[in-house]
Amino acid sequence: MLETEYTLAPIGILHSPLKQRERAPMQGGEGAPDAWLDVNATVAAGLAGIEAGQEIILITWLHQSQRDILQVHPRDDTKQPLRGVFATRSPDRPNPLGLHRVTVRAIAGTRLDVGPIEAIDGTPVVDIKPVLAQSADA
Amino acid sequence: MLETEYTLAPIGILHSPLKQRERAPMQGGEGAPDAWLDVNATVAAGLAGIEAGQEIILITWLHQSQRDILQVHPRDDTKQPLRGVFATRSPDRPNPLGLHRVTVRAIAGTRLDVGPIEAIDGTPVVDIKPVLAQSADA
Repeated sequence: MLETEYTLAPIGILHSPLKQRERAPMQGGEGAPDAWLDVNATVAAGLAGIEAGQEIILITWLHQSQRDILQVHPRDDTKQPLRGVFATRSPDRPNPLGLHRVTVRAIAGTRLDVGPIEAIDGTPVVDIKPVLAQSADA
Repeated sequence: MLETEYTLAPIGILHSPLKQRERAPMQGGEGAPDAWLDVNATVAAGLAGIEAGQEIILITWLHQSQRDILQVHPRDDTKQPLRGVFATRSPDRPNPLGLHRVTVRAIAGTRLDVGPIEAIDGTPVVDIKPVLAQSADA
């Protein structure tokens, strides 16, 4: 079972003014901009019920990540001891999935204006989920 | 870009007393049990820093899901109108990723006792992330 692999297909792509990973904030709440999520027409029926003003969770594929890194210095601070990537939000990890809680600012057809979000321009999105009212979490 | 595919490899597997999807609660807070997460030895170095008592987010691969479903009746209630899967937590969705906020009950080597979690026995786990202190969310 552990040798199995699974295939993800993007459901959309982010268009952001952030062009380089090096310049991106580490979390959305740290001065990140809004971005457009352009949803693939083939899955756009899955958006029915999402409304402007709502909070949603985007799961992204952090396409510039290194997948062979298992420990990092938190927040790139080499004065901090190495930690396992599963104890951090480092984009470098075996399966480079990003988790972003954002507000839907506006919806125009299959495009959602969302933010704030620290993911860079061109980041593929692989899933969208509502924030659950009873737990305010993932 | 939207035609690209990405490959996920499990980093571990859940061992749960829940054996059938039909009997699983819909969310962890709805009477779900604890489960053991057995982490693959090849990525176990990534666990360094995770501690008992901490809240973490597991991202699972919901391996029994149907990927061609774009709209569902929320909570399987046919009296409710169809909604897009991205506006629900339905396991049936184009990329069947599950998001579970759990407490680490105990750690024994590469096994984490976590819960409560509604995922069934044998569910592959593809990522682990800490809950961020500043936002209590995903």
